[in-house]
Amino acid sequence: MSKIKVGVAGYGTIGQRLADGVAMQGDMELVGIADLAPTLSLQALREKDMIGANGVEYKVYLVDGANKDAFKAKDIPVAGTFEELCKNVDVMLDSSPGGVGAKNKENYYEKYGVKAIFQGGEKNSVADVFFHGYANYEEGLGQDYLKLTSCNTTGLIRTVDCLDREFGVGKVAITIIRRVADPGDYHRGLTNALQMDKAPSHQAVDLMTIMPHVEATGILVHTPVTHGHIITVLASGKDGKKITKEEALAAFQKHPRIRVVRIDEGFSGNASFFKYGRDLGNRRGDIYEIGLWEDSLVESGNDIMYAIHIPQESVTIPETIDAVRALMGVQKTREEGTAETNKYLGIGNFKK
Amino acid sequence: MSKIKVGVAGYGTIGQRLADGVAMQGDMELVGIADLAPTLSLQALREKDMIGANGVEYKVYLVDGANKDAFKAKDIPVAGTFEELCKNVDVMLDSSPGGVGAKNKENYYEKYGVKAIFQGGEKNSVADVFFHGYANYEEGLGQDYLKLTSCNTTGLIRTVDCLDREFGVGKVAITIIRRVADPGDYHRGLTNALQMDKAPSHQAVDLMTIMPHVEATGILVHTPVTHGHIITVLASGKDGKKITKEEALAAFQKHPRIRVVRIDEGFSGNASFFKYGRDLGNRRGDIYEIGLWEDSLVESGNDIMYAIHIPQESVTIPETIDAVRALMGVQKTREEGTAETNKYLGIGNFKK
Amino acid sequence: MSKIKVGVAGYGTIGQRLADGVAMQGDMELVGIADLAPTLSLQALREKDMIGANGVEYKVYLVDGANKDAFKAKDIPVAGTFEELCKNVDVMLDSSPGGVGAKNKENYYEKYGVKAIFQGGEKNSVADVFFHGYANYEEGLGQDYLKLTSCNTTGLIRTVDCLDREFGVGKVAITIIRRVADPGDYHRGLTNALQMDKAPSHQAVDLMTIMPHVEATGILVHTPVTHGHIITVLASGKDGKKITKEEALAAFQKHPRIRVVRIDEGFSGNASFFKYGRDLGNRRGDIYEIGLWEDSLVESGNDIMYAIHIPQESVTIPETIDAVRALMGVQKTREEGTAETNKYLGIGNFKK
Amino acid sequence: MSKIKVGVAGYGTIGQRLADGVAMQGDMELVGIADLAPTLSLQALREKDMIGANGVEYKVYLVDGANKDAFKAKDIPVAGTFEELCKNVDVMLDSSPGGVGAKNKENYYEKYGVKAIFQGGEKNSVADVFFHGYANYEEGLGQDYLKLTSCNTTGLIRTVDCLDREFGVGKVAITIIRRVADPGDYHRGLTNALQMDKAPSHQAVDLMTIMPHVEATGILVHTPVTHGHIITVLASGKDGKKITKEEALAAFQKHPRIRVVRIDEGFSGNASFFKYGRDLGNRRGDIYEIGLWEDSLVESGNDIMYAIHIPQESVTIPETIDAVRALMGVQKTREEGTAETNKYLGIGNFKK
Repeated sequence: MSKIKVGVAGYGTIGQRLADGVAMQGDMELVGIADLAPTLSLQALREKDMIGANGVEYKVYLVDGANKDAFKAKDIPVAGTFEELCKNVDVMLDSSPGGVGAKNKENYYEKYGVKAIFQGGEKNSVADVFFHGYANYEEGLGQDYLKLTSCNTTGLIRTVDCLDREFGVGKVAITIIRRVADPGDYHRGLTNALQMDKAPSHQAVDLMTIMPHVEATGILVHTPVTHGHIITVLASGKDGKKITKEEALAAFQKHPRIRVVRIDEGFSGNASFFKYGRDLGNRRGDIYEIGLWEDSLVESGNDIMYAIHIPQESVTIPETIDAVRALMGVQKTREEGTAETNKYLGIGNFKK
Repeated sequence: MSKIKVGVAGYGTIGQRLADGVAMQGDMELVGIADLAPTLSLQALREKDMIGANGVEYKVYLVDGANKDAFKAKDIPVAGTFEELCKNVDVMLDSSPGGVGAKNKENYYEKYGVKAIFQGGEKNSVADVFFHGYANYEEGLGQDYLKLTSCNTTGLIRTVDCLDREFGVGKVAITIIRRVADPGDYHRGLTNALQMDKAPSHQAVDLMTIMPHVEATGILVHTPVTHGHIITVLASGKDGKKITKEEALAAFQKHPRIRVVRIDEGFSGNASFFKYGRDLGNRRGDIYEIGLWEDSLVESGNDIMYAIHIPQESVTIPETIDAVRALMGVQKTREEGTAETNKYLGIGNFKK
Repeated sequence: MSKIKVGVAGYGTIGQRLADGVAMQGDMELVGIADLAPTLSLQALREKDMIGANGVEYKVYLVDGANKDAFKAKDIPVAGTFEELCKNVDVMLDSSPGGVGAKNKENYYEKYGVKAIFQGGEKNSVADVFFHGYANYEEGLGQDYLKLTSCNTTGLIRTVDCLDREFGVGKVAITIIRRVADPGDYHRGLTNALQMDKAPSHQAVDLMTIMPHVEATGILVHTPVTHGHIITVLASGKDGKKITKEEALAAFQKHPRIRVVRIDEGFSGNASFFKYGRDLGNRRGDIYEIGLWEDSLVESGNDIMYAIHIPQESVTIPETIDAVRALMGVQKTREEGTAETNKYLGIGNFKK
Repeated sequence: MSKIKVGVAGYGTIGQRLADGVAMQGDMELVGIADLAPTLSLQALREKDMIGANGVEYKVYLVDGANKDAFKAKDIPVAGTFEELCKNVDVMLDSSPGGVGAKNKENYYEKYGVKAIFQGGEKNSVADVFFHGYANYEEGLGQDYLKLTSCNTTGLIRTVDCLDREFGVGKVAITIIRRVADPGDYHRGLTNALQMDKAPSHQAVDLMTIMPHVEATGILVHTPVTHGHIITVLASGKDGKKITKEEALAAFQKHPRIRVVRIDEGFSGNASFFKYGRDLGNRRGDIYEIGLWEDSLVESGNDIMYAIHIPQESVTIPETIDAVRALMGVQKTREEGTAETNKYLGIGNFKK
């Protein structure tokens, strides 16, 4: 069977990792990546002779408005235009800045019959389905356009969907302790302040779009750190049914994309996961799984409360790869689709 | 009627503010403050000729082990020993480092019949009652030893007690987003990390000690900031009775020690309160009220969720002054006791 | 003699403190303050019944474009328009956002014959003289428009001018470790990063404008803190003449606006000064003096190296008040002008 | 020729990277690593089936006092004791906590004739020579014990030695803007503060030990960041000889372990290097070179001033590998020794 041909639009924080994720799939081919300027990330790629993850060469295409001379000045080889890339792919993973994806769809994807997967920055209306690999894989089957949940929502839904399938969930109330910037960002920092967002947080609203039978609300607070969000979740069983600490723990431990950890093992906070990913020797130090602290699990009456860690740079990659599988219809069920993604990304190996 | 004679043991972050708070009470006399070393705070006092809040002179007494020469080297006048201070006060506000208060009780307070109020660092057993001015004032009446709730618990209980008295509260689940250090601290910082505590947080446990009819649990996360904690609270009405957003808001707005604010007024986060206190021209820029964001209030089914700001340095001062009133029995009810404290501290003026 | 009538345009971080500074001068009258919107700072003023420093009422005037209803909604009384304020003052302290000061000059100051003092955000060309109270007071005498040096330059020049007058200085090379935001800022933070500016830093260039006989250069690095800059200075004597550590220390200790401190006293870093100002009970916790660490003083061959602390919010206030004195020509010499300012601001009391 | 047998004592931040560095040398064999407890770093290694850099298996040995059962509980295979490791190596890279290296020397290295290289935490007296690969390689030839310079000193000396060999350097004055913690540290943070050290900084003193003909002094300030130090250096030519900006730049550009970068390329600060290393796909995201900002280079009279970036986790690895080469005497000159290290670590490839 021929490989699925995939392109990546936008080689930023998410785009780089999508390219890496595709390069690691045995049944996909990374045709190319597209960007506007010779950023540090592209300079780093050139320093490595354009070889990215898994020994794959990343070919660079230029989006409209890009200055070819600027790429030349940095010795970055250019393979063609974004339009040319569109002609040669089955699916485009669009991680352009918010709003650009919608224009790409209008200008190119519809024209060339390219399926596309958009990230959280686009409006929901750009896509046929707002997608999560574990929660609604089957709704994405055979569609043309999917939109992925954002980083916090992706990780959050892993746990809520996990509880929901085991026990039934009626309601969740979340507190998002959000990192304000990624490592290397200088333009959106916060210094010695916790900043409030108007409630309810969009992540709670998004959860309800994906899981309409659950009532969700929440509060988001920005914090001056870069290594991952922490979310506390209070989940209530459907119709008030009790979920015990032991039951929840057992369910979480079975999920391939949830790492259950303990403070006394050394996982003291969000920075521990960042360090652990680097110590694993993973490319960019990335981890695809979310963390869940066993020692945060407490019962509140019939409800269950717990805290999770969201590695914001990499957490959406597996679900985006799931989305490619759903769009192309190669795997017909969530079990098969996510298992294939997990296999190629090495997810779940920590369980052994 | 003669004034209540009050001493303060330990002139650290809390002790300084207790001294200021006592100096502002028209019916109390600050007999003196006691400390071990000529800290920056004492050097600052000396630079102002030992004049503290409200034009009151602060007399310095030395605790056991203090080096008198070190005080002399900094030109800080010494009025006597801690034991001498004990002989001259009705009540000692003990804000010594954790554990020292218990020793002071054994060595001095019991010996000289001095009533005492301990801060959160001491064990509960040191006191007759674990005290909160609004939640259990009457239990403190006429006792000898009270222990105050810590900063987060003090502020949290203001809101839970407020809802409980209006609607009845059955259960609360909290997420504490904790500042790790005070401004000027160098020894307990955190850099680019969110650090987890084992759940349930002690604040939830402490709340249940003060309000035993409420079931409480929670998760605490340390964040690298200095200007106040933020707590999100999910409160459930007793027996599942619904509390609406409008009802909760109306109740909070009536409470003198809760400032209801909005993001669009400029209260973007914890640092806004810190700035506001400085702009008020308050001594040390302190604010005694907690903040509560109107735009954080959301309903979760029958439950109500909201976020509050805790000014860690100053929030316990009013409840400690309440405790003096309870111990001495001058005001017999929570309404009278807290009103008198509020009057002298200027609390509630913002409501006008 | 009648008091100098002073207005303040812009009630932001600097404007508030200029208003306070003027209110403390026995020979000046704060006619009013002008702003565009009912900011938190003005809401705080209203909460205190419009009473600012020294018991003075601050009257609020509205600049062009201000929405009167917004002020009304916050119960902030409005005394008139900015134009009306201009008609009633001798000198305007213009701390408007950068560029607005030049327009104010064109629209109002020239029209009404109002002298004005601009802050660092305006271009040098807006003023007759780029001014520093200690370095070139006499050049400001009788002028119409002065521009103040920015916070770092103001503090830096205090030390370089001090050495220059004692020993002669030929050259300085500085490293500015800059705070990125003020307490309460959310819009210009930096998280877990040190950010470079292109060298030479503008502060070195500005120093040469004020002290043209000194050669200056330097590098500026932004750091994620809010409580004051630290600058290291390497100063070379004129023609290579040696300045010893002891000589430099003695000179610094005589300067009223330089606090010589030591780490072992408790001045561990920039946050210690912030805490100290609060402990002094100063309004907003402000300190007007810069700090200079005695234990940072080292010799580098014939050169002298030292580190200073710049309290960015308040450091320019005394030199701005000096500027009023120079403009009005009441005190004819730097010694008299700065001494009068110091007296009213309580500067130098720490020396006693 | 048989490979040099190398062990690593202490698998912490430095030890892990030393192990990786050795594993990448074609002429060295990593016999094993030794540690006390099954840290997160060892748990990460186990998750990768004990395979570290370059496909090499890392065998774990237990130091005295280690709890074998704790390793077993984490499924980490143990190859033997530290003493057994000592018997099987030619050189031990000792990155134990400060002071432990000296005991290891006394207890094991001397006993088994193992050469050893100590990190900056040990006293200078533990070693025959205080070593830097570029500055004094030849002094290390054939010795038994070397001590490496600490991270800041290592990077600093690269630049000062570079200038010294080209132009002669007489004097340097440095300002170290130091990160306080590594990513993943929770125990030594700093929050919203810049903390002073007593001058002169030990790095200046250490530089003089390695380069006794240079006079050095400096001031160190701790800052709340984790991704690398920034040092500003003012270097004076020998006997006051002028070093121009262009000359200095040309010299730095030729040095394999110095990356000359510009802000307008995207290297905005220290975090840019951290991001760049991750984008390169380097193991742990590490970079061995220091950064030097071309746009920080300025002349101060005859002196030259510039700013460098020190990647604290990895910068000492190349010089430590150089030290192995010097100790074993395989390469007899600094040019040969450092070139061999550079070849295996991929250093200097960015120059192409």
